[in-house]
Parts: sequence; C-alpha cells; structure tokens
Amino acid sequence: MIKIDFDLDKRLNDDTIYICDLPLSKLLLMNDSNYPWFIVVPRVKKISEIFQLSEDDQIQLNSEVSKLSQILLDYFDGCKVNTAALGNIVNQLHVHIIIRKETDISWPNPVWGSSPAVHYSKIDLNSVILELQSIIAKIVF
Amino acid sequence: MIKIDFDLDKRLNDDTIYICDLPLSKLLLMNDSNYPWFIVVPRVKKISEIFQLSEDDQIQLNSEVSKLSQILLDYFDGCKVNTAALGNIVNQLHVHIIIRKETDISWPNPVWGSSPAVHYSKIDLNSVILELQSIIAKIVF
Repeated sequence: MIKIDFDLDKRLNDDTIYICDLPLSKLLLMNDSNYPWFIVVPRVKKISEIFQLSEDDQIQLNSEVSKLSQILLDYFDGCKVNTAALGNIVNQLHVHIIIRKETDISWPNPVWGSSPAVHYSKIDLNSVILELQSIIAKIVF
Repeated sequence: MIKIDFDLDKRLNDDTIYICDLPLSKLLLMNDSNYPWFIVVPRVKKISEIFQLSEDDQIQLNSEVSKLSQILLDYFDGCKVNTAALGNIVNQLHVHIIIRKETDISWPNPVWGSSPAVHYSKIDLNSVILELQSIIAKIVF
C-alpha cells in the first residue's frame, strides 16, 4: 500500500494545512476555522471516484475515515460528522470529514458555499496541528 | 447480516421511492427528477454515524455504495458521483449517491438546498423503478 509519485492537487494544497500521512492517505486540515474540517486524500494517482480504488484500498479508506470521524467527533465535542466525496471542482479523489455542532455558523445546512472561510491565525494553527498530530498518532488505522 | 425490526425515518420515507433491498441496506430514489439521486439506508436500528456500524457492516456498506456508484454513473452517463453521509436533519444513518452531470441544474455546486425538488410523474416513476430494479438485480454486492 506504499504509494509513490503522488502529487496533491494545487487547490487542495492551497486551501489546506498538512497534518500527517495515514497508511493510505494524506490528512489535511481545511484552512477554515468555522468548523473542524478535514480532508483525506488517498495517495493514489489519477483517480476521482472511490470505486476506482482497489477493494483493499477502499476498505483501508473506510477505516481511516471511520476511525478519524469517531475520534475527532469526540475530541471536538461535535454532534454530527458530515462525510462526503464530492469532487465537482477538484477532480482528485478526496473525502471531507467535517465535525458539526449545533452552534456552528452553517448548522444544519451543509458547509459548502455556506459561509466564507475564516483562516486560522499562525499561532492558533501551530497549536492545533501539534494537538491533532498527537491525537492521531494514537489511532491504529 | 439479516436485520429485523427496522423502521425507516418518516422524512426519508416521505421524500423517496423504494427501489429494493440490498444485503445490508434499503435503496431509495429521491423524488427529485433534477438528478439521479439515491439514498442507501443500512437496516440497522438507532445509528447515525458510519463508525457505529460493525466493521463487517462498514465494509458491506462501502461495497454497496461503491458498486452502485459505478453502475449508476455509467447508466446515467454522469461525469461525477457525489457520495455523502450528512444527517444534520434526518438523524437515521443514510448515504446519498448523486449522479452529477455538467448540464444539471446545480452543477458544480452540491445539490442540497440548491434547487427545489421536481417530483417524478407517476408514469415516469413506474418505468424508472422497473429499469433500476432490473439493472441492480445484476450487481453482486
């Protein structure tokens, strides 16, 4: 399952902050402090649909998204996880994991197109990244 | 994996048309002819998140969603599949599979809240259901 020669889509790269590599995927944080909003990108070239992954990789992707969802929902004290693979604009396969709260700016609507992104400050970001890396390091994917 | 005593959420029931039962899930068609829009509902009681399914059921759900996505994308000649488990309004776990086209009314935006639903006519619906049941009967989940 080691993937090489993988290039992250430019828009995903511009809009997110790198957190860590999981066995199959890159884990990114969307630079929008309105919500704990993560993007999981399997390091597999030239695919845009989940069904284009091998069966083993589909199972691994589900495991990564599912375990992250559970841990992050708990950590951020959310009330609902929103997971989605859309890709109408960014073609490279990526899965959104968004921890929703009844107090967030877009609740109960989906987040896409709902409110302009509010970028993290550099100071906030450093602590958020370290904290996330430490939580995620404990998960067995 | 036989599930009993499962009640479909009232809103899901009101907004959709029953197509068939898959090994784990009910397959429903959203009553909105703007898009080929399907809802997959695992017949498991009282859960709202994918991670609340057993590992085996998660794998089965992925298989059902993935195989349906591939077949339906091809059948409806779409350019992209949108899959999502949101559930901010309807709490019962359900997964959306929406076949998108560059000519559809909401492209490239997500469909939720984008355009009012256009219900199928009864005549259209009968032929659509029969056609879908025949396609899906050939899939090995």
